[in-house]
This record gives sequence, C-alpha cells and structure tokens, in this order.
Amino acid sequence: MVRLKGNMLIAQSGGPSMVINQSLVGAVLAAKATASIHGIIGARHGIEGIIEEQFVNLRRETAAHLEAVAMTPSSALGSVRQKPTADDCKRIFGVLKKYEVRYFFYIGGNDSAETAHIIDEEAGAAAFDLRCYHIPKTIDNDLRENDHTPGFGSAARFVACALMGDDLDNRSLKGVKIDVIMGRDAGFLTAAAALARTAPDSGPHLIYLPERPFSLDRFCADIAVATKKWGRCVVAVSEGIRDESGTVIASKFIKERDSHGNAQLGGSGALGDYLAAAVKVKTGIRRVRADTFGYLQRAFPGMASEVDAREARAVGEVAVKQAAMEGSKSGSIVIRRAAGKRYKVQYGCVPLKKVARDTRHMPAAYINRAGNDVTPAFLDYVRPIVGCLPKIALLKNVPLPGSRLKKRQ
Amino acid sequence: MVRLKGNMLIAQSGGPSMVINQSLVGAVLAAKATASIHGIIGARHGIEGIIEEQFVNLRRETAAHLEAVAMTPSSALGSVRQKPTADDCKRIFGVLKKYEVRYFFYIGGNDSAETAHIIDEEAGAAAFDLRCYHIPKTIDNDLRENDHTPGFGSAARFVACALMGDDLDNRSLKGVKIDVIMGRDAGFLTAAAALARTAPDSGPHLIYLPERPFSLDRFCADIAVATKKWGRCVVAVSEGIRDESGTVIASKFIKERDSHGNAQLGGSGALGDYLAAAVKVKTGIRRVRADTFGYLQRAFPGMASEVDAREARAVGEVAVKQAAMEGSKSGSIVIRRAAGKRYKVQYGCVPLKKVARDTRHMPAAYINRAGNDVTPAFLDYVRPIVGCLPKIALLKNVPLPGSRLKKRQ
Repeated sequence: MVRLKGNMLIAQSGGPSMVINQSLVGAVLAAKATASIHGIIGARHGIEGIIEEQFVNLRRETAAHLEAVAMTPSSALGSVRQKPTADDCKRIFGVLKKYEVRYFFYIGGNDSAETAHIIDEEAGAAAFDLRCYHIPKTIDNDLRENDHTPGFGSAARFVACALMGDDLDNRSLKGVKIDVIMGRDAGFLTAAAALARTAPDSGPHLIYLPERPFSLDRFCADIAVATKKWGRCVVAVSEGIRDESGTVIASKFIKERDSHGNAQLGGSGALGDYLAAAVKVKTGIRRVRADTFGYLQRAFPGMASEVDAREARAVGEVAVKQAAMEGSKSGSIVIRRAAGKRYKVQYGCVPLKKVARDTRHMPAAYINRAGNDVTPAFLDYVRPIVGCLPKIALLKNVPLPGSRLKKRQ
Repeated sequence: MVRLKGNMLIAQSGGPSMVINQSLVGAVLAAKATASIHGIIGARHGIEGIIEEQFVNLRRETAAHLEAVAMTPSSALGSVRQKPTADDCKRIFGVLKKYEVRYFFYIGGNDSAETAHIIDEEAGAAAFDLRCYHIPKTIDNDLRENDHTPGFGSAARFVACALMGDDLDNRSLKGVKIDVIMGRDAGFLTAAAALARTAPDSGPHLIYLPERPFSLDRFCADIAVATKKWGRCVVAVSEGIRDESGTVIASKFIKERDSHGNAQLGGSGALGDYLAAAVKVKTGIRRVRADTFGYLQRAFPGMASEVDAREARAVGEVAVKQAAMEGSKSGSIVIRRAAGKRYKVQYGCVPLKKVARDTRHMPAAYINRAGNDVTPAFLDYVRPIVGCLPKIALLKNVPLPGSRLKKRQ
C-alpha cells in the first residue's frame, strides 16, 4: 500500500440514475474522513468540466446537506455524454496534474471506465503518481465483471411498478398495450417488467429483448395468441430490439444520432407508435396503445430501490476507503454476489480495462426459448436488487347467482 | 326522506384513476352497514356489463380485502369507454328493474353522470322507484359543480414528481425537454407540473394548456428565450393543445378516433415527437427530447395523494350514507372547498344534469397573461389536493478558488 497525499477529483458521466448521487456522497464523505486527501474537488458535467476547469469545492457541502443530495435522483454535479478522444484524455490528465490531483474518481458506465483507463495510462507514461478509479453506474446493468450495477435496481423498480399499473389499466379497458423500455444493447431493464406479475393472468404477457432477433410478424402473431388467451395483452419491448441482421429497429425511423453514431433512441415515441400501428393492421385488434417510458425510468424521485441505494453508496465509499486508501493500483469497483441462498454482495476492485468499453448482455439462461419472455432464473436474479413493490389486490369477482357472469374474472 | 328497500348496483366507467377503487370500496362498505340495502351488485366494465348482466356479488368480498383493493389503482370492476345511446339507457333501465335494483351508483366523469341522468329519467317516466347516483372521478379535473375531482390529485402528484425528476435530468444533460401530459379539454393536470419547481431556476420553465390557442412559432420562440436564460429548458405541454381555430394539434397527425369522434390522444408519442422535431428545426438547439407520460399518469401504484385517496373514499361513502339513505332524490356527489385558510372540503349532492355532459376548464385567473405558465393562484389551489412531494436537494456548488467556475451553478 502506497498512500498518496494530495487532492481528489470526482465527476459524473453518462445518463443519470436515481442513485448516482449516493455514490458521489459515499465517496465524498469517505474522503472527508481521511487525512491523506486534501482538496475534494467536483467537476461540473464530467470531462467537459474537467477540460474547462469548472470545479466546485465539495468540502463546502455539509454532511447533512450531502445526505439530502444522496436521496435526490440525477447527477448532482451535472453529467455529459461526450466520448473523449485520446487527445481529450491527454488534456484531462494535464488539468489533473495542474490541480495536484492524486485521486481521480469517475462515476459512470463503460465509457467512463474507458476514460479513466486512458487517463491512467497517460499518467503512467508521464510517471505522474495518479490513481484513477471508476465507480460503476448504469441503469442498463451492462457492465462486465459486475453481478449488477448501481442504478439498475431503482430503474427496474420504476419499470416493474409502471407495468403493474399498466397491467391494471389494461384489465380495465382491455386491448393491447405496448410499453417501450430503455436499454439499447442489454435487455435487463425491459426484462425487469416481469416483476409486475402478481396473478396468474398478470402482464406483461410478452417481453422482447435486444438479445434476440426481432421479427414483426412473430411479434404480431404472439400478440394475437396472447390476446385470444387472456382477452387482452400487455407487452414490454426494449428500445434496442433489432432485426436478424442486427439493425436496431428504431434506427430505421429515427434520424438523430448520438455521439457514438447510434440512433438516439431515448426521448422519442416513434418505436412504440410504429409497433402499435403494425399490430393494429396485422391483427385487426382495435384498441392498441403504446407508451414509451422515457427519462422517468432513470430520474423519478422517491422510487429508488433500498438495496440499490445502499449499494450505490457503498461503491463510492469502497472506491475511497478501500481501493484508494488501502490499495496501490487504479481500478474499477465491482459488485459481486456472494454464493448462498441469502442475497449478499461483496465489493472488489478490478483493472480498469476489464470494465472499459465492451458491455455485457442478458445471459441465455435468463431468456425463454421462444425469445419472448424471461425465465424463473432471471426473476431469482433480479428480485433482491429491486426490493419491495407496492401491494395490489384484485376483486375476487364472485359471480352473482342468476346473472350471466359464469366464472370469476 | 323516503328510504327504498332493495338491491344496489355499482359500476365504474371511463379512464381509470389511482383512487377510483377508494370510491367503490367507500360505497360498498357503507352499503354493508345499512339494513335497507340487500344485494350489493357490481357490474363488470360499466354499462357494457349491465347490458350483458355480467354481475359480481360484492357482499362476498371481505372488508380486509376491500381495503387492499382500495389501495390498488385502476377500476377493479373493469371499465368501459362507451357512450350509451338513449336506447342503451333504456336497456340498462330494464336490467336494473329485472334485478330489483333500487340504488344505482356510477363512478366516472361527465359521460357517466349523463348515463345516470338518462337512466334516472327513464325510471321516472316508468314510475319505477329508482335512485341514480353519480360518484365523481376524473384525472382531468373537469367536472362542473366541483372544486376538484377524485383522481386528479393523485395524477397531479405523479406529474409533479415526474417533472421534478425530469428537471433534475435536464440539469444534468441540458438541452430542451418536452413532456406531453394528459387532458384533452382541461389543462389542470398539465398545469400541476408547476408544483415541480423547488428552486428559482427549476423547470418546467414553460407550460402550455388547451385553454389558450397554441402557436408553434411562439412555442419555439418561448423555448429559445428560456434556453438562453437558463441554459436549458423543460416544457410541459397538454396533449389537448389546439390552434387558433380550435383544432387539436395532435388530431392533425393521429388518425384513430375514439367513441366520441375525437382523435385518440393517449397511447401515442406523436405529438411530442412532432413538437421536438419542430423545435430542433426552428431554434437550432441540438438536444431536444420529448416524453409522453401516457397511462402511467393514472395508474402508477403507490403514488396516490393522501388527500385524494381520502376524498375518493368519502364521495363513495357520502353517495350511500347521505345521498341514498338520507336523501330522497337522485344526484351527483360534489366536492366543495370550504372558505378559510385551512384546506377543508364539504360534500354535497346536486341534480345529475348539473354535472352531466359539459365539462369545465381552467379559470382564467389560473393562467398567466402570456398563456405559457400558471399563476400563483393556481398553485394555492392545487397544492393541498396533491399533498406532499419527495424532498430533493441540489449541491451548493461553491466554486473552487483558482478554478474557472465563477458562480454557483
């Protein structure tokens, strides 16, 4: 263990989550408690703020106020969706050197891990004593080396609640309801819709993920069958569904591209409208509606999963207290699930390159053979991360003797 | 007071809400407590179930289970969106007579009041002793004779929370965010977005309602000004915005029509996508996103406003205990706000025709002169109905001395 003395810099990157501020606050409070860390610097809007030296003094935030910030969704320091070039990383490294930063913490997904990784290599090449830590965050749950990622459990809780409500709504007015859920490459968040099932006939009755090729004909046929069986149908669809050739369906009618050159899927209802129109035409079902949950999935206040909030706090603390203060190398904090029946996690720190860039997908064991639902193994996996859901109850609907209602419905 | 002896029938109609089952349970539990009411019959899916005699025996539901149903969003008996013809009403009346129904309760909006009204007139013409009661429900808050309606407060709470989260999200990643909110004719629900403002720079920065003619040019110009001022912009837009001629904007590109011949606005993201595309072109702002909140607004579990839930329960109880058991005439239950500083309501019963058919709109005193925001009077009106909102906190963002950050932001 070689403990450096100097300043720390922390920033947030990528799409916000409901618990990303837990990680920020976990790291800041841990830093306040250690003598080796002097300045606690926050950069506004991730690498954009580092390059432009837009820095806040996080020592000036009281512990009580930080606790309130921790409960607040969305990146408190501001975020950025900028894929840094190698040149950007050099500039960032220059700024870190100028501000005598010895510990750099970047909270975000795989791109943020990549940024931390390149900066770490720059520092190594320049023989500058800098430790770079990536603190995991993504509602998509697609970071390698992790059992799951902070932010996912809370977004999944929103999705599960939304589907519970939507299924009740669909029981009332029937027809087909399609819900489009975030997750370009990984289907975990869409799959969490399955947690909404509380009765044998509860929706979602069908679930479509980016991990399996999407066929519009099969989709419509599945819906027709389900509607015949249940008298109605609720469907969860990932925004990232793609055809046999791997082309993202939504990219066919969304023109805008993000900084990675991909179709901008969030903030548009186009995929849902397209699917609803197709179902109407191909099945002849009259009442077909689509909702796209959009940014509410990652920023709705008061919806955080307790487990998720606790773990998000922990990865921030672990990054400072264990990885930075007790370790001797840069790295990415990871969450692993301990073996055994009771849900328990362990935290670790792995080399940055193991988490950077590439993402992971839903394991095959979590997807049913037909590719239109999840398996019980997925429910076992996801349930403890999402935590408790609201209790709902249906009427028993006992038929009135002499009326035409024949069975409970 | 002439107390009839016989059966009661209750049903639910129109769009579900988060608290419509409170009204159902309030009425059923009150009915169980009175000796004059024998059978407590529930009809599945409103008038559709009455015509088809799809009846459940509500006496078979335990009080404890009913309490759980009361907490569950969406119409537990099922709902219907069918505008009954005079002929339908005659058939309904025939069924009520056959099942010896002396008390008919219909929970819903202005169309449901109209249905109850026509049936009541049929019964009068046939000299059949029947009392018809309309129990108010609508998230649109557009019933005449009422200060506000059950269902609105909870939907407004969802909208306020959603905007709080969305504003935080927009602080993180900037740009323009447009949120499309339910309410075809009345802007109350969209206006409730204003409750999301917790800081001087909080969004929504602009609010557009059906009560004021919508101009796309002015909309884009307003957004450009707000974005210049705040560095970002969050906008709440009613799905029912209409142009100078009164044509609903969304009806220009949504083909589907509902049973009233109006464009089917819910369950489509088309209006949001149209507005976002227009703002991009007309303002040159790059990051413009739109979300349409859709059915989550009326059915999200665990989101009910406490005041709304209590009042929804009360209107069901009042309909049975006071209007039916102590009154002598059919009528619609209404909520009135008592004078005085402390929020307090009183319940009454008015003739059905006073609530039936026509709706009410946002009073002019609740809309600002420019037609792009609400007034403080509206906030005073809406706050007690919506109740408490989650606490959120922003970092103080004190600039680091020596850095380029010049003021708290």
